[in-house]
Amino acid sequence: MVRWLTAGESHGPALVATVEGLPAGIRMTSSDISAELARRRLGHGRGARMSFERDEVELLGGVRHGVTLGGPVSVVVRNTEWPKWERVMSPDPVDPAALAGLGRAAPLTRPRPGHADLAGMQKYGFDDARPVLERASARETAARVALGTAAKALLRQAYGIEVISHVVAIGAVEVPPGVPAPTSLAAVDADPVRCADQATSVRMVAEIDVAHADADTLGGIVEVLAYGCPPGLGSYVHGDRRIDARIAGELMGIQAIKGVEFGDGFTTARRRGSGAHDEIEPAGAGSRRVRRATDRAGGVEGGMTTGEPLRVRVAMKPISSLTRPLSTVDVSTGEAAVAINQRSDVCAVPAAGVVTEAMVALVLADAALEKFGGDSVEETRRNYEGYLKSLVIR
Amino acid sequence: MVRWLTAGESHGPALVATVEGLPAGIRMTSSDISAELARRRLGHGRGARMSFERDEVELLGGVRHGVTLGGPVSVVVRNTEWPKWERVMSPDPVDPAALAGLGRAAPLTRPRPGHADLAGMQKYGFDDARPVLERASARETAARVALGTAAKALLRQAYGIEVISHVVAIGAVEVPPGVPAPTSLAAVDADPVRCADQATSVRMVAEIDVAHADADTLGGIVEVLAYGCPPGLGSYVHGDRRIDARIAGELMGIQAIKGVEFGDGFTTARRRGSGAHDEIEPAGAGSRRVRRATDRAGGVEGGMTTGEPLRVRVAMKPISSLTRPLSTVDVSTGEAAVAINQRSDVCAVPAAGVVTEAMVALVLADAALEKFGGDSVEETRRNYEGYLKSLVIR
Amino acid sequence: MVRWLTAGESHGPALVATVEGLPAGIRMTSSDISAELARRRLGHGRGARMSFERDEVELLGGVRHGVTLGGPVSVVVRNTEWPKWERVMSPDPVDPAALAGLGRAAPLTRPRPGHADLAGMQKYGFDDARPVLERASARETAARVALGTAAKALLRQAYGIEVISHVVAIGAVEVPPGVPAPTSLAAVDADPVRCADQATSVRMVAEIDVAHADADTLGGIVEVLAYGCPPGLGSYVHGDRRIDARIAGELMGIQAIKGVEFGDGFTTARRRGSGAHDEIEPAGAGSRRVRRATDRAGGVEGGMTTGEPLRVRVAMKPISSLTRPLSTVDVSTGEAAVAINQRSDVCAVPAAGVVTEAMVALVLADAALEKFGGDSVEETRRNYEGYLKSLVIR
Amino acid sequence: MVRWLTAGESHGPALVATVEGLPAGIRMTSSDISAELARRRLGHGRGARMSFERDEVELLGGVRHGVTLGGPVSVVVRNTEWPKWERVMSPDPVDPAALAGLGRAAPLTRPRPGHADLAGMQKYGFDDARPVLERASARETAARVALGTAAKALLRQAYGIEVISHVVAIGAVEVPPGVPAPTSLAAVDADPVRCADQATSVRMVAEIDVAHADADTLGGIVEVLAYGCPPGLGSYVHGDRRIDARIAGELMGIQAIKGVEFGDGFTTARRRGSGAHDEIEPAGAGSRRVRRATDRAGGVEGGMTTGEPLRVRVAMKPISSLTRPLSTVDVSTGEAAVAINQRSDVCAVPAAGVVTEAMVALVLADAALEKFGGDSVEETRRNYEGYLKSLVIR
Repeated sequence: MVRWLTAGESHGPALVATVEGLPAGIRMTSSDISAELARRRLGHGRGARMSFERDEVELLGGVRHGVTLGGPVSVVVRNTEWPKWERVMSPDPVDPAALAGLGRAAPLTRPRPGHADLAGMQKYGFDDARPVLERASARETAARVALGTAAKALLRQAYGIEVISHVVAIGAVEVPPGVPAPTSLAAVDADPVRCADQATSVRMVAEIDVAHADADTLGGIVEVLAYGCPPGLGSYVHGDRRIDARIAGELMGIQAIKGVEFGDGFTTARRRGSGAHDEIEPAGAGSRRVRRATDRAGGVEGGMTTGEPLRVRVAMKPISSLTRPLSTVDVSTGEAAVAINQRSDVCAVPAAGVVTEAMVALVLADAALEKFGGDSVEETRRNYEGYLKSLVIR
Repeated sequence: MVRWLTAGESHGPALVATVEGLPAGIRMTSSDISAELARRRLGHGRGARMSFERDEVELLGGVRHGVTLGGPVSVVVRNTEWPKWERVMSPDPVDPAALAGLGRAAPLTRPRPGHADLAGMQKYGFDDARPVLERASARETAARVALGTAAKALLRQAYGIEVISHVVAIGAVEVPPGVPAPTSLAAVDADPVRCADQATSVRMVAEIDVAHADADTLGGIVEVLAYGCPPGLGSYVHGDRRIDARIAGELMGIQAIKGVEFGDGFTTARRRGSGAHDEIEPAGAGSRRVRRATDRAGGVEGGMTTGEPLRVRVAMKPISSLTRPLSTVDVSTGEAAVAINQRSDVCAVPAAGVVTEAMVALVLADAALEKFGGDSVEETRRNYEGYLKSLVIR
Repeated sequence: MVRWLTAGESHGPALVATVEGLPAGIRMTSSDISAELARRRLGHGRGARMSFERDEVELLGGVRHGVTLGGPVSVVVRNTEWPKWERVMSPDPVDPAALAGLGRAAPLTRPRPGHADLAGMQKYGFDDARPVLERASARETAARVALGTAAKALLRQAYGIEVISHVVAIGAVEVPPGVPAPTSLAAVDADPVRCADQATSVRMVAEIDVAHADADTLGGIVEVLAYGCPPGLGSYVHGDRRIDARIAGELMGIQAIKGVEFGDGFTTARRRGSGAHDEIEPAGAGSRRVRRATDRAGGVEGGMTTGEPLRVRVAMKPISSLTRPLSTVDVSTGEAAVAINQRSDVCAVPAAGVVTEAMVALVLADAALEKFGGDSVEETRRNYEGYLKSLVIR
Repeated sequence: MVRWLTAGESHGPALVATVEGLPAGIRMTSSDISAELARRRLGHGRGARMSFERDEVELLGGVRHGVTLGGPVSVVVRNTEWPKWERVMSPDPVDPAALAGLGRAAPLTRPRPGHADLAGMQKYGFDDARPVLERASARETAARVALGTAAKALLRQAYGIEVISHVVAIGAVEVPPGVPAPTSLAAVDADPVRCADQATSVRMVAEIDVAHADADTLGGIVEVLAYGCPPGLGSYVHGDRRIDARIAGELMGIQAIKGVEFGDGFTTARRRGSGAHDEIEPAGAGSRRVRRATDRAGGVEGGMTTGEPLRVRVAMKPISSLTRPLSTVDVSTGEAAVAINQRSDVCAVPAAGVVTEAMVALVLADAALEKFGGDSVEETRRNYEGYLKSLVIR
């Protein structure tokens, strides 16, 4: 069982990410993590923070000389802005005099609609939204991306699985049908909105620029693809073992995600059965290999990977922090007010793709280790190959 | 922590459902379970099985004189067709001679696209799809509905939460905007397709009839509503504690579900930030109560219930078992073939609503007990009321 | 991950046991379960109930024609005394008139020291100990033994592991040092107190007879042995993954167990380091096999099996239900009183061994599947054999 | 649910400890953690490392201005010896030339009996024991102690529970019966072996000195006490919910622990029932309060705290790293050899008490939050007080 915990506040000293359950023998370095974190800062429409966030990474446990040891892997991602926040977010008590008059230390009493602010204050009994927004912030996804780096390395090195993502919609602008190849990730990353279709990308950039000019924000849709999954990850035998259930839970657990669909998802619900499934056909005479005539199911049937590319989409709502703030109440008075205004991006959809890749990779790593076992990359790969060899039909 | 396990095969002697972690003092009877199971058989477009399934229920543990005891609650739902399957599905070995020539005992070697059949055979090493389809079958959802009965009773009796569902789309036919009231469940159940809008219902029935005439099947979309949730169920502090993540995982874990969205979900992804969130306003002068101007978020912000009605939709694919079967291969030969033909419904969307209610109720019960604790209904209600009283803004 | 739930009350209609996570292909029948349940009724010093309990077993899910299917395995064990308890323990409400005057229906207000009675009433808010003792009763261990049957079958068929137990102390009577061979289980079971040493057995029987004559009860110590474990089940990488931690948790979770020790346990704490460990020596020139000079660690080092026999002991307290009851208070008045008197055995230590075997088998099955993966017996055995082959030193 | 992960190697840059599930509002500082870590270095018989380990603590998440925020709490404990190990234990790859000739970098091929070394190498496929001993080392318990600090603060501030420990045996030297008072922790800590009995302490110190002179090591027995537990933490309704099961699992999961017993544990197994339990008596006329005549059960009945002090003992084996090393094989040749010699203490029993306190505190915090719920100290305390008030008998 792969399990993980993240910790840390948006403006605290650092984020901490720990994952337990990965085998020994995965090759990975702190540079690999930094590279993934840099990908998370990509995208036209990001605010100022992205340009000065350097995401200083420190690998503190579980890896030696660039190879995992089998124990928990732990990463600290420092907040490079920490000196500015040191007093306001100090873990240890500070002299109240040192906080007096500091704007950043003033209680935030006008919760933003669309954020955790109000319900968080109610749940935890705060009269200040600061503790809520510090942890609810999407900054936390940097920790998930760090963990995803390890999961992706395992998937690639042990099973040949590649997890990629691309943006399929920003606001009302959508790509035409089609999926990028497993090798196209560098090209997607080079695009200003991580879109695989150049013509659409131009329109997406324009859409962001217009929203920016209007002091507004945009959401969108991201698609994640996992190439190279063997048949049989996940299971139909219990609801919570289905690979789609596990992936959906982790994806919906990402900040700002409001929807998840596998393959053609909601579109499939509108189809008739005769045109909604992926017929099976022999891949070639005598080969005992099969292929699918279509890809409607997103590579998942009965809660298991089928061997076809896994394909899942998430809907991201537009950023809730707005320069022209929304209406709210001041919780200290109960009076109508406008929401606090936190620095924000116009559109974070391109970056969200990198986070979704991480979560899909973590779930697939868990499911693969569940099926193949193994305490080292060599052992799990040996078991995986034995399984493939045993398949009569593949 | 509320946890549960279901067991049993579609044509086996019985389904078994056990749930652990519910408090003592919930009033519930086997008739309550039977009533929920009867709701699961509702809907125009169901096949023959629904009419003779009587779902004989036996409460075997955790309840005494109609009140839960605090220990695991366990329910057995007998298969009323068991005599017909006794030899074919016998748990204990049977004389091979007794199976010889029995059609039902013949290996199923032509896996159905859209089902667990092929990947299940590969994963578990079967050369017969029978063991796969017996457990992957939607018959298993009867066990979940039985468990949901207990969760719903807790939610109602301890916190005044009501979970209902209605059908919002069947194939291409969709309802106009609007949600049914918490008290409208009986009316919805009385509708032939569990649709809250009468005019749309007529069109849905027609759509089913046409599909039936064409030997085809239909999917659709169901919406679940939870009325009466307090603010603060779930949490933003860790991805897997978000109420939307937990609900999405359980809903995507239901057979045939391909998509989940909260509130306006995928539609919200297409909106701009200024028009995508639910502004907060004072509910009345001096009351310290707040309300939302709109319902776009589905009653969930930052992974927590906000106090507004929780609203979530699932996309169900059309049934994969078709009278005019899809193309496949015969795994015993590797040759092209047509899929096995299992008895099936035309459309199971109305029933799916009852299953989604059960899963939402189980997650909400878990989240409420996590927040309020309590080993008896009285204790958890006392804690819940103390929390409500403590809220400055509500 | 192997997970399980049991349900049911001591005098309810039945116990229900479900285990999820076992592979397909385990050969097991309801007779195998009945045989294990019969072993649980063994032992000189058992009360009347043991003789008329027939433990009518029904396999309801997860097994077909004597082979597991990969889905949850579920077993119902009927209470053969149910007709006597039908009204008093009815899950559904009964007419109060039907209960009036029934001795068995009267509230139990004098909690027994040593039992869950008092704390259970406080925790769950009961003014009657009946709901507590019904679930806290050791009758529930029959459900665990049923589940252990499946785990033992897996261990034997996939990895050649045999789990046995024997009684090492009853009251003050203890066996001399030494462990029974893996093949000696039938002989142990044939002994009236499941003791492997005949001379000691005679003294144990006498000890029980004297206690019986004195209207008293006895506890004792049981040792469980697992033969054939490969090196490396469990792990040192996290506290909760240690095999000894997991086994200790499950064993201490058995009714009436107050202590657990691995190998020489508390005795080892009194030794010096130079005489407390098991030195490693080559098993033979050039063989690359090793053996241990002693067995002090119980086959566990660093939270992992070493390849030597796993050996763990539990301390069982004497039965708390006494014919000459202990002092207590009447919770309905607060006055001093004598405890309620429930029918009971003099000594349940021989039977406890069978329960401990079940729990050790479940944990080992979980740990083996974690290491070797596999969704069928064939697959997990293939992976296991690949691992053994890969070992340089063994 | 309180859950935690630790990470880091003994000679790596740092240990990392993260705990999720604690409420907001716990007052704690990094000094509190440092103070607990200093307690862990206590005790006559510790080696050189203890004197220069300063355990530089950094709180990185979950605490602001000395109060927890409700999110995960994360602590980094730096290795002050890191500069000496930087090349040998570098997470990132190092130039092989930089390692050439470094003694510390040489593979360790002679596994120590009593340690994880051999089974760890086999499990993870290493030909060097270094990766195993780095994580299996008791150094990791510093991370657990850091986490225990938060759990203890919660227990004290919300429920008035105090967890303390004392040494009851070192080698063959044992204390006379009796337990220290809840307020005696400072006095125990001031004792050179953390023994509450001065006369015994003198003999224990002498025992350590003799063992040291003989180049040998010692184990012993530690007792943990939790004062102030309400009745009803844990539960009898399922084996894995029993408080003794959960505590036993966590305690046996500590390095070098071979046995766990509650109350009189193994001694109780030798008693008769009439003298083995704690009779209940009214605490005073008309008070509806009860007390126990004895303390044999360790404050746990039926898997629940009774309201009496919780009392549990662990057996620690003598340290396995010996100056006069034990026999082993060299895994690179298969030949007989003497075990590698790692720097070590003579006796770590006094320090083990601090670790056991941490684990007991974490489990009790989990069980208390399970029963009382609450997302802030104020909320969980309100619920706790409501429960106490509701008890008819207490």
